[in-house]
Amino acid sequence: MDLPILSFTQYDLVFNVLSFTVACMFASAAFFIAARNSIGERYRLAVTIAALAVGIAGYHYVMIFYNWVASYELSGMVYVPNGHRFNDAYRYVDWILTVPLLMVELVAVLGLSKSESRSLLTRLIIAAALMTGLGYPGEISSDNMVRFIFGVLGTLPFLYIVYVLWFEMSGALERQSERIRVLYRNIRLLTLAAWGFYPMAYMAPLFLTSSASGEVILQVGYSMADILAKCGYGIIIFSIARLKTEADRTASRPRPKGPQVPTPGPVRPGVAR
Amino acid sequence: MDLPILSFTQYDLVFNVLSFTVACMFASAAFFIAARNSIGERYRLAVTIAALAVGIAGYHYVMIFYNWVASYELSGMVYVPNGHRFNDAYRYVDWILTVPLLMVELVAVLGLSKSESRSLLTRLIIAAALMTGLGYPGEISSDNMVRFIFGVLGTLPFLYIVYVLWFEMSGALERQSERIRVLYRNIRLLTLAAWGFYPMAYMAPLFLTSSASGEVILQVGYSMADILAKCGYGIIIFSIARLKTEADRTASRPRPKGPQVPTPGPVRPGVAR
Repeated sequence: MDLPILSFTQYDLVFNVLSFTVACMFASAAFFIAARNSIGERYRLAVTIAALAVGIAGYHYVMIFYNWVASYELSGMVYVPNGHRFNDAYRYVDWILTVPLLMVELVAVLGLSKSESRSLLTRLIIAAALMTGLGYPGEISSDNMVRFIFGVLGTLPFLYIVYVLWFEMSGALERQSERIRVLYRNIRLLTLAAWGFYPMAYMAPLFLTSSASGEVILQVGYSMADILAKCGYGIIIFSIARLKTEADRTASRPRPKGPQVPTPGPVRPGVAR
Repeated sequence: MDLPILSFTQYDLVFNVLSFTVACMFASAAFFIAARNSIGERYRLAVTIAALAVGIAGYHYVMIFYNWVASYELSGMVYVPNGHRFNDAYRYVDWILTVPLLMVELVAVLGLSKSESRSLLTRLIIAAALMTGLGYPGEISSDNMVRFIFGVLGTLPFLYIVYVLWFEMSGALERQSERIRVLYRNIRLLTLAAWGFYPMAYMAPLFLTSSASGEVILQVGYSMADILAKCGYGIIIFSIARLKTEADRTASRPRPKGPQVPTPGPVRPGVAR
């Protein structure tokens, strides 16, 4: 897609939002890596994957940021595209890697049985990859009809994911504590809200007469949605993991008090003998 | 805002202060990450967040530094702006991320109950974000009246934060030990002193006839304030976390001495047998 001429404010807004997103992604990655040691081993994988997802996104935002800077030249009071081609694919390359990882985080933090996890994961990962893959042909097309058709096609796997998160996983949720159910409800709403941004940003060029506003809304909307869907989502995953770690520790703590722990007993006499 | 022509001394002062700030921020980040392992799990989050805040600030100072270098050209005996636009927004993008994190550090290190923490955090984070957000329109305006009005508006949430730190949190403080109360008093004074720098630097362009001095005072003042408010503040947070860790360990240590811990008891007779 050709880039439009932008005013200072328009160019700066995208520039600053991209830099802001780089900072958010890498700061979140650092946080998840630092904080994962406090998470019980059973849920640690979820937090590690959360760190990966924002780390990968941070890398892609660095590339998008420099791509943006390289694509424009200051000419008097406006920013003019300088003929350098802006690479829309970075976002899609990012999503095809990170969106399946977001699904892995969610399933991993729930601590389901192996067979439940595997079936859920397979379907969610395929749907997430399809969703991203189907959006791309529309994104790079300058034909609004093509954009619209692929937008609709990409929405179908999204609806399937929403269906799985809402209906199919309710069984797995019944076994969780009240506070975790609340967090899970939040993560589901966040997914819907953040992922709802993407189609809006995607469809913005169809409804706007000015291609400048369309481009700005697209870049800002995608970035904000990515921050919510990756950093915000990761923080909820981390909270769930921490709550579950605490719950597991509390459940295993009262044991030493009772008389049913004979193990250290017989060892000690052996030492004294 | 348009950049002014600067003398060698003026340009170099900003250049060196920016580089100094980069060094301070990343060194502090490295210190907090390395030292957090010695902190008890309950207060470790505060030190992790301290590391994040200075890490994010370090990133933004690298960007500001290179932005400064790219915006000037040496011409004879003076530095002349070369038409590259200097991006004032980096500081604000930084603050909107890091100032709320400073509030999180403070609340996290006090180890309050979940409900106390949540209420304090929500209000402090909103006030911190408002304070930063309201300053920005004034910062980028070349109209001194606009600068003044938004400066005053941004001061209101700042006063609210001061109020919360001074009056509302005194209840939480009464439960802390004497040494921690002293540190908390220091952090409160540091917040007032360091945060007091920002409005002074912000308002400097209103009172100076030379725009060159105004720009230099602005850049140097903001950088110094950031070092105090992030690195200095983080070091006090770290000290509080260490004191509280020690206090917790001392509190849990005497237990084996007392007769109220029967668990190791039955084991010992076995040893003697």
